[in-house]
Amino acid sequence: MNENDSSAHGKLYGIGVGPGDPELLTLKAHRIIQEVPVIAYAVPESGRSFAREVVSPFLEGADKVEIPIPMPMVAERFPAQEVYDEAQENLSGRLRAGEDVAVLCQGDPFFYGSFMYLYARMCDEFRVEVIPGISSVMACSAALGFALASRNDTLTVLPGPMDPEVMKQRICEVEAAVILKVGRHFGKIYDVLKDLNLLSHSRYIERATLENQRILSLEDIDPDEVPYFSMILVHKRGFAWNL
Amino acid sequence: MNENDSSAHGKLYGIGVGPGDPELLTLKAHRIIQEVPVIAYAVPESGRSFAREVVSPFLEGADKVEIPIPMPMVAERFPAQEVYDEAQENLSGRLRAGEDVAVLCQGDPFFYGSFMYLYARMCDEFRVEVIPGISSVMACSAALGFALASRNDTLTVLPGPMDPEVMKQRICEVEAAVILKVGRHFGKIYDVLKDLNLLSHSRYIERATLENQRILSLEDIDPDEVPYFSMILVHKRGFAWNL
Repeated sequence: MNENDSSAHGKLYGIGVGPGDPELLTLKAHRIIQEVPVIAYAVPESGRSFAREVVSPFLEGADKVEIPIPMPMVAERFPAQEVYDEAQENLSGRLRAGEDVAVLCQGDPFFYGSFMYLYARMCDEFRVEVIPGISSVMACSAALGFALASRNDTLTVLPGPMDPEVMKQRICEVEAAVILKVGRHFGKIYDVLKDLNLLSHSRYIERATLENQRILSLEDIDPDEVPYFSMILVHKRGFAWNL
Repeated sequence: MNENDSSAHGKLYGIGVGPGDPELLTLKAHRIIQEVPVIAYAVPESGRSFAREVVSPFLEGADKVEIPIPMPMVAERFPAQEVYDEAQENLSGRLRAGEDVAVLCQGDPFFYGSFMYLYARMCDEFRVEVIPGISSVMACSAALGFALASRNDTLTVLPGPMDPEVMKQRICEVEAAVILKVGRHFGKIYDVLKDLNLLSHSRYIERATLENQRILSLEDIDPDEVPYFSMILVHKRGFAWNL
């Protein structure tokens, strides 16, 4: 095989595996995971790969090459770019050898995901396809039993680490807000929502769609026990159905 | 069977069927659609049901009761509430008879969807479960090959019909914006983005994931040919990969 013939190269997939329930994979994600000989996934410094665990029911007995991508977390929890340089090298070798590679991504690959770093590095040389996944935002809304946005609502998505005054301003302006990456920012966010008199219009959700899913009022949360992957939904109509 | 024994009642599902590609159904949506004896879906005044068309490959030869919910559109394209009263009556009869009913919803049922009107009416009497679906927002981002939101971006979702001055202000404040329900509001939105000098940082997408998907610069759009279900993505980094 000609090493320079990119048509003989494998294809790179960024596959959204959804929020946690394996049944929330799409048919397309499920098919591609069955078909590819190589899967890759991020692994935190301590602990296991969430995305790999989500698809584990579909990999039992499968004979695949697995490439874990270690993710040492630095400031603000963004991994150093060298991690992606190394992963790029690893995956490129497989692709140049004609093998298709699926990178498993929690939620949706392009919604606050890290697949974009691989995509940016590799889309010039290789064919890359992103398979959208169920976002935890939609999963939380379904779990809560309340529409996130309806009619002509404006909805804003805010990262937990942002400045509290800016956060307050953004929430003031819209009908509905989703606050991601809550973790150690819980106390600050609580104060923002209390100042806005919106605590009763807010809900905390962690591990949506998993067996240990929790949905709570913000008053019932221990700020020291909030995982990074938790979410707060705010809706100014509150969570009663007054349509 | 005791008519008052709600445990003998069927269960109501609101099923997100995703943006259009049938392979973007989740495994769970696919399973439930196979299992239920009754499916229901919105049908516009003229034309066919989009959600029904998405799942048609999975219904060939299936013996199901189908309940179309006619959707005469009134001002701002919100159907009159009587439509839901009638649908509620129809579906409730099936559920009280012990049959499970799946309402097929384009995209995600709780993300600007109309399933909320049935949910609100029926969740007290019946068990209701929402199965989240791939949102067109994620599908458009994947089709465009560009991350919608990353790191600590703020993302805002704006409905096309909103006031242009407010829209301008909201876009000023954030890194990324999604404008939904573009349709006849295209000209107004174009002017907003031009004033903000963001035309080159915006992309128009219609029919994402379908065979006739189109992704265009805003300058290349004929405002008279913009369907209601189209979307504009705006990102202040532009659509080149400068990470």
